[in-house]
Amino acid sequence: MDAHTFLHTHREIFLDELKTFLTLPTISTLSEYRADVQRGAEWVAGNLRAIGFEHIEIFPTGEGAGQPLVYADWLHAEGAPTVLVYGHFDVQPVDPLHEWLTPPFAPTIHGDTIYARGASDMKAQTLAFLKALEALLRTNTLRVNVKVIVEGEEEIGSPHLAPFLRVHREKLKCDVALNADSQMAARDLPSIVYGLRGLGYFEIWVQGPAQDLHSGSFGGSLHNPAQALCELIAGMHDAEGRVTLPGFYDDVRALSAEERAELARFPVTDAQWANVAGVTGLWGEKGFSTVERTGARPTLEVNGLLSGFTGEGSKTVLPAKAMAKISTRLVPNQHPDQVKQQLEAYLRAHAPNTIRWQVKQLAAGEPVLLNRNSRYVQAAAHALQETFGVAPAFQLLGWSVPVTNMLNDELGVDVVVMGFGLADDGTHGPNEHFYLPNFYRGIESYIRFFQYAAEIGD
Amino acid sequence: MDAHTFLHTHREIFLDELKTFLTLPTISTLSEYRADVQRGAEWVAGNLRAIGFEHIEIFPTGEGAGQPLVYADWLHAEGAPTVLVYGHFDVQPVDPLHEWLTPPFAPTIHGDTIYARGASDMKAQTLAFLKALEALLRTNTLRVNVKVIVEGEEEIGSPHLAPFLRVHREKLKCDVALNADSQMAARDLPSIVYGLRGLGYFEIWVQGPAQDLHSGSFGGSLHNPAQALCELIAGMHDAEGRVTLPGFYDDVRALSAEERAELARFPVTDAQWANVAGVTGLWGEKGFSTVERTGARPTLEVNGLLSGFTGEGSKTVLPAKAMAKISTRLVPNQHPDQVKQQLEAYLRAHAPNTIRWQVKQLAAGEPVLLNRNSRYVQAAAHALQETFGVAPAFQLLGWSVPVTNMLNDELGVDVVVMGFGLADDGTHGPNEHFYLPNFYRGIESYIRFFQYAAEIGD
Repeated sequence: MDAHTFLHTHREIFLDELKTFLTLPTISTLSEYRADVQRGAEWVAGNLRAIGFEHIEIFPTGEGAGQPLVYADWLHAEGAPTVLVYGHFDVQPVDPLHEWLTPPFAPTIHGDTIYARGASDMKAQTLAFLKALEALLRTNTLRVNVKVIVEGEEEIGSPHLAPFLRVHREKLKCDVALNADSQMAARDLPSIVYGLRGLGYFEIWVQGPAQDLHSGSFGGSLHNPAQALCELIAGMHDAEGRVTLPGFYDDVRALSAEERAELARFPVTDAQWANVAGVTGLWGEKGFSTVERTGARPTLEVNGLLSGFTGEGSKTVLPAKAMAKISTRLVPNQHPDQVKQQLEAYLRAHAPNTIRWQVKQLAAGEPVLLNRNSRYVQAAAHALQETFGVAPAFQLLGWSVPVTNMLNDELGVDVVVMGFGLADDGTHGPNEHFYLPNFYRGIESYIRFFQYAAEIGD
Repeated sequence: MDAHTFLHTHREIFLDELKTFLTLPTISTLSEYRADVQRGAEWVAGNLRAIGFEHIEIFPTGEGAGQPLVYADWLHAEGAPTVLVYGHFDVQPVDPLHEWLTPPFAPTIHGDTIYARGASDMKAQTLAFLKALEALLRTNTLRVNVKVIVEGEEEIGSPHLAPFLRVHREKLKCDVALNADSQMAARDLPSIVYGLRGLGYFEIWVQGPAQDLHSGSFGGSLHNPAQALCELIAGMHDAEGRVTLPGFYDDVRALSAEERAELARFPVTDAQWANVAGVTGLWGEKGFSTVERTGARPTLEVNGLLSGFTGEGSKTVLPAKAMAKISTRLVPNQHPDQVKQQLEAYLRAHAPNTIRWQVKQLAAGEPVLLNRNSRYVQAAAHALQETFGVAPAFQLLGWSVPVTNMLNDELGVDVVVMGFGLADDGTHGPNEHFYLPNFYRGIESYIRFFQYAAEIGD
């Protein structure tokens, strides 16, 4: 039996495993889910053990506060290249919970689609490469050495991954790294990502009065901190949709004419994009297309706002404090630490002296630009073309997968970014889902990638 | 024994009763406290029964959703005037709970001050008039007829009080109404309020995408609803601190030179006001003093903001919705319904077509201006001067006590507004408190008011 036949005969079993994986509420950012994240690590380790991996270890990360990382390897293809495969098993929180049509950790299939938190980001894809490796191992056709790391901190910015890679550099030595946390250009158009945006995630606190006051007694005589925060946020974009933090665009790499032409061939129209998002009209930086705005240009978004009384009814309070979570998406050659300074410079310049403010950096990731022409990228392109019957699109991804450049920086090898999620999978929101045919095509593509990678010599 | 001697011999007992009253968590805006609000009504009714009142009734208000109102009377002063006394026993929510130094419903005395939710707004004052009436009744010296209503919905805008007054107009017939929900100009300077600001309280919802999205995938291509809400709020004041809702100032009554001169004598400096509030500097409408800004001019405040992810950590979400609670304080001759139209006109003019919006009115109260020269107001002034040794200040109060003009409108009698809270009592915020010497001086003042009111003929 070859690996593809193995896959064909194990489709139902693999789907059952996916469902089990999706029942685990592995929310890494909320401390009350700590035990569940640990159980997620153990489930992944158990799966690796069952399919024939060795040297399986669950590493604690950080000092007390970190979430576990699973390592395993299979190193019996003497003389062949070594592929390091990366995935994560942690997921985002589920709020707003009441907007889910089915419970987020009770995976539910409607037609070709499975609904659950983490379905697309990225349990289906993590399981896809595990099942590709199972198909190759069980049919004795794995011809490359494979090291696997599956972490539990990606959704909080992988704070301990870079140190882990550094400490275990020898153990993780490889010829290429495969990052499976990615998406396709469209349902039937696979893609290889050659650039990912960086992330600078901040919390801004504005303090007005020392404590909450009665808005009838004090309203109109003090600068309301919620109002002051709104004024500051409103000023962070100009009328052209450009971010106004001083120096924000100074280091932004310009797109080449060739890149712009390639991005223009992307198979999603503005009308489709607005429809997927459910908005009446699009918005963004003047002079750039939607594909450019979401992948090739830096942005600044409000991720959360909180001030005063937000419960049922009408509390007449003048709040003492107001908070915004604000994140910037960065492109080469911006750096999150510089953006923090730019944000502070903006606040120094624009915050009135009637309030006090504070900025905390919650997460940071550098943007990354990969080598589109490496032999491993060609192997991946070949695998995708054979599986889907169409050449993959080369894509600039909008979001941040800090691990990609950690792999790049710490291991010094080419990185292939190839995944099977879709832009409208509802990742991070309610009713996250995954198109199941691409679970199987993902397994097939990974099988072929490992096969073609075996043919690459030094 | 006269009423004052009775008070003197019952100081400790009255204080114990105040403590008991303050342990009841009568939060009217939160449905989970419904049973506690009912218990609050029963406690007040029991107190009225114990001190000799008759015809005690607890009226349910509204259809299922309303909170109870307590009525009682004592009508044995034939030929003498009838005073209707108003108070409320409901309180505001306690959040932010972690900022309380002592539990909000475990009243705690430090020095001369008692700390508890509702201490100043307004359980000490409600109990003060009840104890004044007790002192007069127990010493057989009550010479006016008294009707008492103590409601449980003041903190949610008294939605059922006007209909109640209308339905029970005959039962509530009186010569003057005393509203005890008020404050003093300073600790030793009593005041009589002759104007109260109205309230228009709104919730604004801005909807962007149909559901929460991944900010990395969609950020930069849609108008973030939290950002759009901030832009709208930022535009609601101009650089002079004036509210920009179209027509907002059209009907505002101008202050006379005499009123401005009187308000200028108020014994609180800007430095003291900033110190009480705990701010680095004041802010407000250009061309007006702090006393004018907080009592005589209309204002617009943000009471709450909520959007996206506000928990621990960094969720990279592009929120579907953003909400602001916004309240306006209104002066004669503004009307909350007109202000709602002005707010909607503002949003129609300024909301971009990339988002959808909705306005809900949560509470409304008309501003009110009372007759400063009525005989009952003179009786109150006399009572205060005798108790405190100083003539009371005539004050324009910043907040909304919709009941005052309900009493005015529905009963058609003069209203006396006389209370004993202080501006820095922390009403509606954490660590609300009340200066206990004014609990006793309040009782004394109310005793004297009832005594002087008895001397007023038709």
